[in-house]
Amino acid sequence: MTSIDEIRRPVAEEFQLFQRAFEEVLKTDNALLSDVLSLILARRGKQLRPLLVLLSAKLCHGVTDKTIDTAVALELLHTATLIHDDVVDGSNMRRGLPSVNAHWNNKIAVLVGDYMLSKVVKLLAEVRNVKILSIVSEMGRALSDGELLQLHSRDDMWISEKDYFRIIEHKTARLFAACTEAGSVSSGASVRQQTALSCFGEELGICFQMQDDILDYSDSEELGKPTMGDIRDGKVTLPLIIALQRASKSETARIIQLTQKNIDFAIENEIKSFVLRYDGIRQQRMREHQQIALGALEAFHPNNITDALGMLLTYATNRVC
Amino acid sequence: MTSIDEIRRPVAEEFQLFQRAFEEVLKTDNALLSDVLSLILARRGKQLRPLLVLLSAKLCHGVTDKTIDTAVALELLHTATLIHDDVVDGSNMRRGLPSVNAHWNNKIAVLVGDYMLSKVVKLLAEVRNVKILSIVSEMGRALSDGELLQLHSRDDMWISEKDYFRIIEHKTARLFAACTEAGSVSSGASVRQQTALSCFGEELGICFQMQDDILDYSDSEELGKPTMGDIRDGKVTLPLIIALQRASKSETARIIQLTQKNIDFAIENEIKSFVLRYDGIRQQRMREHQQIALGALEAFHPNNITDALGMLLTYATNRVC
Repeated sequence: MTSIDEIRRPVAEEFQLFQRAFEEVLKTDNALLSDVLSLILARRGKQLRPLLVLLSAKLCHGVTDKTIDTAVALELLHTATLIHDDVVDGSNMRRGLPSVNAHWNNKIAVLVGDYMLSKVVKLLAEVRNVKILSIVSEMGRALSDGELLQLHSRDDMWISEKDYFRIIEHKTARLFAACTEAGSVSSGASVRQQTALSCFGEELGICFQMQDDILDYSDSEELGKPTMGDIRDGKVTLPLIIALQRASKSETARIIQLTQKNIDFAIENEIKSFVLRYDGIRQQRMREHQQIALGALEAFHPNNITDALGMLLTYATNRVC
Repeated sequence: MTSIDEIRRPVAEEFQLFQRAFEEVLKTDNALLSDVLSLILARRGKQLRPLLVLLSAKLCHGVTDKTIDTAVALELLHTATLIHDDVVDGSNMRRGLPSVNAHWNNKIAVLVGDYMLSKVVKLLAEVRNVKILSIVSEMGRALSDGELLQLHSRDDMWISEKDYFRIIEHKTARLFAACTEAGSVSSGASVRQQTALSCFGEELGICFQMQDDILDYSDSEELGKPTMGDIRDGKVTLPLIIALQRASKSETARIIQLTQKNIDFAIENEIKSFVLRYDGIRQQRMREHQQIALGALEAFHPNNITDALGMLLTYATNRVC
């Protein structure tokens, strides 16, 4: 299994610059805010999004100051949306640590998310690049649309595959695409390079979210974190959609009935084995998106950066956590 | 008493353009979002902020397409912050209609606010003016700082006059200043004109918030809406700060004790009469800011627009609702 460190290697120095800039932007005099931001820093994830910004810039004409600012802005935007998402979903944990709403309260979570969003706009204003601003603002709108679409279809057991892909495209893939596209723009890439990287980012994002949704149906102990969160939140994802398509009318009716109850451990297990029985976890669709992503990379001469992006794609589709 | 229509008269046509553009930007296919946005439109307030954008532009070199977009962006930003504020304050009503969090829930309020903020950034990206973007982003950060500052000092009975002014400067005055400054920039104003209008907006905003805080200590029936909301929310504003400065040590201690309890109608009345008895409602400080604002307008030849801005200032300081 490829490690994130291996993928980061070609931009190791630039990634350190990003991390310092990210820590810098989270410094504040406000004591309460400072506490919250320390928690945010402590539970940093793999920071794939800024990594994508850096790799994309380096693949074109190299990482610039604008690249670092763009990477910080996009990681901040992602963090702000996670904080607001935890309010929306009423989640108590995030990456093994308490969520902001759980550790403090909803009020503080809303304000801290807004504070970060205001920093995002300020950073983008400082980047002074119309194209980057327009990429990020268009993506912000898509992200917001995706969240509302998902909220609207919550508890709806009959969402179609088409709706599912529309949601993940808006809520995940567009952000990945914005990272790769804005990263390339920040390095002065050609339109052809921008388009290829935007396509790669979008397809990578779709694979990443599909795998995320598959992992939610995996063995919780093996995964090392709770599973079946989506169905408890009333979110129907592709594995269940596929299984419901394949099951008999009577079995479908029974599963739908189950999901209308308070979902306890027994119901969770029943839904999980239903999905496995009907082979809802088939990765065929994901492999198709993976192929399109690899195709997009062919616009570039193979080198250590295209290798790293390829490894990232493999990581996204094969990861087990 | 000057009416808002009278103040709007010199930009009556432009204000209609703004209103159409504002309605246009709130149109959406999402059924849930569309419902929420209808409520938002139904409870539009006096829309003083876009009015300030238009008047400022017209005072310099005239209202342009950029002016209208800026007016829409700033009114949207204001609306988004009100929606999030209602979550933060747990408010059930806003302008006589239910708040988004009360009518739907906190989740939807957070997402709809975020949706609007994403529209703000998109509009600003389309305006393609670096100065306007930087004015609005700097103000967004200040606004967010102000909210966090206020949350941090909530339930603190010992906040100083200096802290009070710092909070209202951040949470109200900077937005007014951004409206007047960005409005002038959108018309191609000179730096001198921009500075004068920024100063006017800031001082107007301070007066507006001071009067708002005074009205919260007025007669609820006369005002036609509930009063004493600030103290119930644990917010100490200037009238109480002044009264606490003037009262004897023992009376101060008694009032502080009262505010630590569950604030019922009797306690509200006692605090209100305490503030009135110690003359906390003196408008002297407000008059000082009003004078600075009027001074800033002297950078312009008097005309029907400077008259309208002067009337707006009088309205802000004398309004009874």
